[in-house]
Amino acid sequence: MFPKNQQNRVRRIPERGHYDRATIYPIVDEALICHVGFSTDDNQPFVIPTIHAREEDTIYLHGAKASRLLKHIQAGNPVCITVTLLDGIVFARSVFNSSMNYRSAVLFGCGRLLTDDADKMHALVVISDHLARGRWEDSRKPTQKELDATSVVAVEIENASAKVRSGPPGDDEEDYALPIWAGVLPLRQEAGVIINDPRLEAEISVPDYLVNYQRGS
Amino acid sequence: MFPKNQQNRVRRIPERGHYDRATIYPIVDEALICHVGFSTDDNQPFVIPTIHAREEDTIYLHGAKASRLLKHIQAGNPVCITVTLLDGIVFARSVFNSSMNYRSAVLFGCGRLLTDDADKMHALVVISDHLARGRWEDSRKPTQKELDATSVVAVEIENASAKVRSGPPGDDEEDYALPIWAGVLPLRQEAGVIINDPRLEAEISVPDYLVNYQRGS
Repeated sequence: MFPKNQQNRVRRIPERGHYDRATIYPIVDEALICHVGFSTDDNQPFVIPTIHAREEDTIYLHGAKASRLLKHIQAGNPVCITVTLLDGIVFARSVFNSSMNYRSAVLFGCGRLLTDDADKMHALVVISDHLARGRWEDSRKPTQKELDATSVVAVEIENASAKVRSGPPGDDEEDYALPIWAGVLPLRQEAGVIINDPRLEAEISVPDYLVNYQRGS
Repeated sequence: MFPKNQQNRVRRIPERGHYDRATIYPIVDEALICHVGFSTDDNQPFVIPTIHAREEDTIYLHGAKASRLLKHIQAGNPVCITVTLLDGIVFARSVFNSSMNYRSAVLFGCGRLLTDDADKMHALVVISDHLARGRWEDSRKPTQKELDATSVVAVEIENASAKVRSGPPGDDEEDYALPIWAGVLPLRQEAGVIINDPRLEAEISVPDYLVNYQRGS
């Protein structure tokens, strides 16, 4: 359970707020990407989408050594990492009560650059597993040169919260009598039909771990 | 065309960068939600997911009057608004060349609070149209009390860029001979089967504008 404070407290509709890892972390793990926020000295915010992976209370982010985002994080600046899963559009009879169904998590922490090659390689395995468990074993592993060209930062989650809405619209009692359709349009991120690399050798088939690919548990 | 500068320049893999409205705005319009970044005086960044809608060079955001995000924006602080569309996971033969297919847009600007009721109502129509064109006409419109409880901010897009990756993996030439599957797992946000509100009167059917709901053009 993360302590509720000024930073992570869900202010709007507090009953949608959650502070326990058991709610927050499955959201983080299901999301393929996160949005990382950082700000420069002149208070200019930046929000960058990137692949993440979680291990215990740590988020790993990686990228090219020259990445501005990673340079900023490795300098020890505070970051905010947000993941959002959209589950549907909620059409209430009134515009005012219309909403979205979603699960979002907002994580706060500071990062550090991984300098040990074994630590970096481990983080890359965690990130690869996050995308598709089984893929790392199949792949051509990073060379020393590639590893050197890659920065990996570990952000310790110091504080976090989730916000979740689910279920049907909640209209004002007097609006239920109106002759207006109401309900939920569910949304889901779905995997389509796999596209082989045009240069793939014909005899290599799609690996099992990508057949019926699904996020979440 | 937005001028390329320190703020919006795509540094990593610059050939994926775009600065023209014709590339950036369709990404903004297809995305159902954005992630808004702002930072407090102590340089603490926050990234909040929210519904947005674009009209010309303006992004409208709305929420409860008490929203920290909106209060911060209406105070004139700079914000960064990022939208990301995930199109697929790109499995190269090497871990290093594996990637994602995506279209993202990063917008910079400052906001102002809409104080005129007609302007607010107009912005709410634009937001409603963004979610589902046709819904506004069907819905029970905001009352004066609801309008008073809602803040709407308009962020003028001062600067922006998009970053786009598409297509098959790009492996190192010598890796193509490896006996490793490679290709793209396409991802798409799909609408599922519509769920009627349990309290819906039986004779009201799903409106046409929600049948075969799709984002993008």
